[in-house]
Amino acid sequence: MATVKLLGDEELSSDAKAIFDDIKAARKSEFVNNFWRALAHDPKTLRRTWDSIQEVMRPGALDPKTKELIYIAVSVAHGCSYCIHSHTAAARAKGMTEQEYAELIAVVGMAAETNKLVTALGVPVDEAFLADCADPS
Amino acid sequence: MATVKLLGDEELSSDAKAIFDDIKAARKSEFVNNFWRALAHDPKTLRRTWDSIQEVMRPGALDPKTKELIYIAVSVAHGCSYCIHSHTAAARAKGMTEQEYAELIAVVGMAAETNKLVTALGVPVDEAFLADCADPS
Amino acid sequence: MATVKLLGDEELSSDAKAIFDDIKAARKSEFVNNFWRALAHDPKTLRRTWDSIQEVMRPGALDPKTKELIYIAVSVAHGCSYCIHSHTAAARAKGMTEQEYAELIAVVGMAAETNKLVTALGVPVDEAFLADCADPS
Amino acid sequence: MATVKLLGDEELSSDAKAIFDDIKAARKSEFVNNFWRALAHDPKTLRRTWDSIQEVMRPGALDPKTKELIYIAVSVAHGCSYCIHSHTAAARAKGMTEQEYAELIAVVGMAAETNKLVTALGVPVDEAFLADCADPS
Amino acid sequence: MATVKLLGDEELSSDAKAIFDDIKAARKSEFVNNFWRALAHDPKTLRRTWDSIQEVMRPGALDPKTKELIYIAVSVAHGCSYCIHSHTAAARAKGMTEQEYAELIAVVGMAAETNKLVTALGVPVDEAFLADCADPS
Amino acid sequence: MATVKLLGDEELSSDAKAIFDDIKAARKSEFVNNFWRALAHDPKTLRRTWDSIQEVMRPGALDPKTKELIYIAVSVAHGCSYCIHSHTAAARAKGMTEQEYAELIAVVGMAAETNKLVTALGVPVDEAFLADCADPS
Repeated sequence: MATVKLLGDEELSSDAKAIFDDIKAARKSEFVNNFWRALAHDPKTLRRTWDSIQEVMRPGALDPKTKELIYIAVSVAHGCSYCIHSHTAAARAKGMTEQEYAELIAVVGMAAETNKLVTALGVPVDEAFLADCADPS
Repeated sequence: MATVKLLGDEELSSDAKAIFDDIKAARKSEFVNNFWRALAHDPKTLRRTWDSIQEVMRPGALDPKTKELIYIAVSVAHGCSYCIHSHTAAARAKGMTEQEYAELIAVVGMAAETNKLVTALGVPVDEAFLADCADPS
Repeated sequence: MATVKLLGDEELSSDAKAIFDDIKAARKSEFVNNFWRALAHDPKTLRRTWDSIQEVMRPGALDPKTKELIYIAVSVAHGCSYCIHSHTAAARAKGMTEQEYAELIAVVGMAAETNKLVTALGVPVDEAFLADCADPS
Repeated sequence: MATVKLLGDEELSSDAKAIFDDIKAARKSEFVNNFWRALAHDPKTLRRTWDSIQEVMRPGALDPKTKELIYIAVSVAHGCSYCIHSHTAAARAKGMTEQEYAELIAVVGMAAETNKLVTALGVPVDEAFLADCADPS
Repeated sequence: MATVKLLGDEELSSDAKAIFDDIKAARKSEFVNNFWRALAHDPKTLRRTWDSIQEVMRPGALDPKTKELIYIAVSVAHGCSYCIHSHTAAARAKGMTEQEYAELIAVVGMAAETNKLVTALGVPVDEAFLADCADPS
Repeated sequence: MATVKLLGDEELSSDAKAIFDDIKAARKSEFVNNFWRALAHDPKTLRRTWDSIQEVMRPGALDPKTKELIYIAVSVAHGCSYCIHSHTAAARAKGMTEQEYAELIAVVGMAAETNKLVTALGVPVDEAFLADCADPS
């Protein structure tokens, strides 16, 4: 499938190659997955996406494994098979246990169900849920 | 809005009342939010949904706050405004800090962007992501 | 809200007015709901949409009430609040009972849950489900 | 694909095996489709999902075939290829004719189109659609 | 996959054949892609869909290439792999350059990200965005 | 609604204020819409989002108006009411005529319909659509 050719290392523009070098250095691995090889036709989006992912996924108030769980949840909700596979692999690499995985998808499924029940019924937001939004400081 | 009347405590069938009593007992509060008041027309679905939520959201390999973060992520991806508000409130009640919240929505947004880039490009799943799926035991 | 003005009967172009006359005649009512009043800025899409809806929703192998149940299900899945409200009203007008409605949304919720479990797990389609597709005649 | 191994009958835990026995008994068949084989890693979710499906899909005010039509509609709206294939097969097994199937997907397509027109235009819900929601008893 | 057999030219009903003849004439080509071969089981929907596409996609205030860009964007947002591939091919056939394609998917990805940030935060619509909607004439 | 307080100019952190100054300078206006006021709690995401939008939406192979049309299409597909309103206003400000707008939403609706027909039928991608993907250079 794919709407563009997946670029091999020897087919990269010099701009794309520089970003691939960053990816390899950051991951301490020569393996660069297909997403980046498809995106490599457009070094500008490749650069912006790589930099943004680095900024968003680095350890912060949330640890990297939890961020991967959230990434999987969104990818499932959007039905992106590639992203589900890549981030499930990433989460496992970051220590996600099979028990955590089982609970993750149970929550995702449950949320999908109540999302649709709520949407079908057109339930108005309770005032109580708006109360503490005033100042998140 | 709402496609059904939100039922007050005095309008509940005896089956629905019994479940509301469970909800109040579990939450140690008289407050029952609108979702349950809309669902209360159908005690069977009310019962099944409440029991399922209890089973899915209880502490396990993942703690309740992390489960709420995942619930918010799915609700955002599905665009369920009610669920976003109720589970954002629930996550805060379970200790989600504003910094954690900021990182959560940054991950959700980032995942949405790469989900769509991947989908647009039709990127095939790397074999490496399939490798360790053989036996999660 | 609305990105265009909802047109009153006296603001219609002659092309749009002709279609509104068709709608009123078909429904035996002077009431024309907001969807058509928003669409009335573009008589070509108004005409095509009205004609298509008439063709699709008329009694056939499936009765009109069942078609409305399906319409609600899709509208819930897509999160279109207007469509949910208008087609829930339409289904009730065509005889949908509250028990049927309760079962409808239970199925919608259940389907959403298993859709997401399947998607998360990347389950491959069983050969058995492909077997009888050869010739639907 | 699949993010977990599909479990064969001989690989099931005793908890999972008990549920598979229920599935086989209920369906009067030794065939258990891939969805359950993927879910079998987590007997708790396997049990809850099987029980919920049984409760939701059993004959009620809506007959089982109509419930399958609704299930297909939701699965199409969510883009779950596995679910589309499995429930289209199930609907045919429950008597869905090709004419009913043709009308089903015509309604699903039409709903998708008007859902998006309404959403684009931001059409506000007519008061008339809210009028009869007061008490569904 | 496919839930119905893709019909060859020699398997068409006379109604379906007439529409295939229209498609071939309009495209000045004997090639009819799989979408129409799946839809050919239902000549009524085949006819309505072909006629609607012709009306919607013909040159107007927007040129055909721009319409294909929009078609791709929607297909990506809905995760329809077939449609992404067919309309990306169509857009290229209508002159879409690889630079235009790169910018298209960058916008699609960006929109997905801000869509989700906005949805997560529940941002209310600014009055300024409602101001000029009064009369688009 | 909103899950966080919309920040007024006087409530901004110095980091957020610097970005608001950039926004005002770029737009030559004191008006900063609610999206940025909600995002202002997190200067890091505020900065990254603003910079990314500037990069993605600037004139390139596609003109800014066409980019806004695409942005609207994605926002409609995702059902983001805020984004639909803000980008419809932006597109009009960049010269979108009402005729262009009418054709835009006709294409969005049509795409939604055929997306779902294709998905329901599980149509496999034609080889012809894969042929020219080899090298987009």
